[in-house]
Amino acid sequence: MRFRLTPQDTSFFEMFARTGTILVEATAVLTEVIGSDQARREELGKEMEELEHRGDEAAHAVLRRVNSSFVTPFDREDIYQLTSRLDDCLDLMQAAVDLMVLYRIGELLPGVGDIVQVLARQAELTAEAMPRLRSPGDLSDYWVEINRLENQADQIHRRLVAALFDGGYDAISIMKHKEIIETLEDAADAFEHVAHTVETIAVKES
Amino acid sequence: MRFRLTPQDTSFFEMFARTGTILVEATAVLTEVIGSDQARREELGKEMEELEHRGDEAAHAVLRRVNSSFVTPFDREDIYQLTSRLDDCLDLMQAAVDLMVLYRIGELLPGVGDIVQVLARQAELTAEAMPRLRSPGDLSDYWVEINRLENQADQIHRRLVAALFDGGYDAISIMKHKEIIETLEDAADAFEHVAHTVETIAVKES
Amino acid sequence: MRFRLTPQDTSFFEMFARTGTILVEATAVLTEVIGSDQARREELGKEMEELEHRGDEAAHAVLRRVNSSFVTPFDREDIYQLTSRLDDCLDLMQAAVDLMVLYRIGELLPGVGDIVQVLARQAELTAEAMPRLRSPGDLSDYWVEINRLENQADQIHRRLVAALFDGGYDAISIMKHKEIIETLEDAADAFEHVAHTVETIAVKES
Repeated sequence: MRFRLTPQDTSFFEMFARTGTILVEATAVLTEVIGSDQARREELGKEMEELEHRGDEAAHAVLRRVNSSFVTPFDREDIYQLTSRLDDCLDLMQAAVDLMVLYRIGELLPGVGDIVQVLARQAELTAEAMPRLRSPGDLSDYWVEINRLENQADQIHRRLVAALFDGGYDAISIMKHKEIIETLEDAADAFEHVAHTVETIAVKES
Repeated sequence: MRFRLTPQDTSFFEMFARTGTILVEATAVLTEVIGSDQARREELGKEMEELEHRGDEAAHAVLRRVNSSFVTPFDREDIYQLTSRLDDCLDLMQAAVDLMVLYRIGELLPGVGDIVQVLARQAELTAEAMPRLRSPGDLSDYWVEINRLENQADQIHRRLVAALFDGGYDAISIMKHKEIIETLEDAADAFEHVAHTVETIAVKES
Repeated sequence: MRFRLTPQDTSFFEMFARTGTILVEATAVLTEVIGSDQARREELGKEMEELEHRGDEAAHAVLRRVNSSFVTPFDREDIYQLTSRLDDCLDLMQAAVDLMVLYRIGELLPGVGDIVQVLARQAELTAEAMPRLRSPGDLSDYWVEINRLENQADQIHRRLVAALFDGGYDAISIMKHKEIIETLEDAADAFEHVAHTVETIAVKES
């Protein structure tokens, strides 16, 4: 068993773990959105907004704690960056849902669900990693796998964009779909940026 | 009456106030651009360029002063960030005008002026806040209101994009308008980033 | 002859010089891509990927060295930033090639080669500047010229976008070309960001 930090410091890890859980819930909503119709998507958009509020509260709790703590488990600026990058993941997934609703996109190009599956796996891994930030050096499997998944999302994204331009779609449908697909790919990137921040923390602690 | 800092430090506040004034002037130009024809827009584009040069000079004056000062009223990196974020507001408003001219956009979608009104209000509040940076803790009204205005700009932006896709416009007009509207929304975001930097400074000083 | 730093510190300059050379090679590939057909572009895309791997290795070598060095020739965070910004130049040039291949763009709008010529000149100047980082204060010609070239790239970019919208192209061709042209302009910007980082280092050292 590893050395435990003081209770005060510990709670930073709990706070990050809470955000990890919210990210997993967000990918569940996003997965349902893919297969839904416009009416159901609008309801799910509201659920996503709820999750985003909870994410904001979790982020503010971390920042308040940083500002009032004498000792933090790692550099203040790394805590800020990790908080901000976790927030980006949620924001981008919410933005993707918002675009589907706003554009009344209807049935999605087959394959969009494949990127969402990658995001769901990235969110799970991130949620598992957060409580283990106490010993960031043990997390190399996590960031290697997140990077691999990001490359996979990028491949799918490129395949989808090529299919979009080759598929006889009209220019307006292409524009709408392209923006949605790019926002999902940006979310996969955002998970990679989280992993990169964790890697940076691990290097400093080692 | 509040405690005054030394004259040297004071001039940072004057420098930021000068940029605030330039931002107000830029929103006035932008407001006129909305209702003008192509020929007048080209003239106003030149005025905007002038303002952008004055903004650059104001920014360089701040940076020279930071590099030559022994004592600064708040952290050097916060001064850099505030300078850079004020500059973003101006750059984005200028970019919006440039796009309208470059795309020979003609009559704008009704409602674009509503975002510009929000920007004008954000610029006024920012200009009022800058000389009051001496006591940043008193500025909470400012950043709360800037955030509220950004949310309003975002609502208008979303309403406009939906109208654009539903309005029977051709794909090329949609592309052009969408980019202009998004640039204006980015400017509203940039004002929020300025306010966020001020909030960060206030938290450190408190 | 100037004072030489210790061998250990010197090798940072050699590492940056290596990346400079890779950037020059990348602009040579990019120049050939412009005039090639789809089949040849796909081959050149693979060469670009190779260069990108070599760039990544060079960047990782720098970061490993920073983390293991007791003394660095300038601030660690400036070394990180310079590394990351050199990497952006390469990424964006690779992205432009990828888009041409992915979109099966065919013959490019006349004038796209003009931006690539600007990039080639920026890469040469950057490669010449890297080994001279030992005395960054002597590099003012470099960053002034890089800025001038960026302005030139921006002018070409704007002329091309206007030509695209005025040229009777269909919406889908406009979308594809616009993204390629913007990616090339972003690469010119990225070279300017490298120069800006060098300027910041020079100011601190002076």
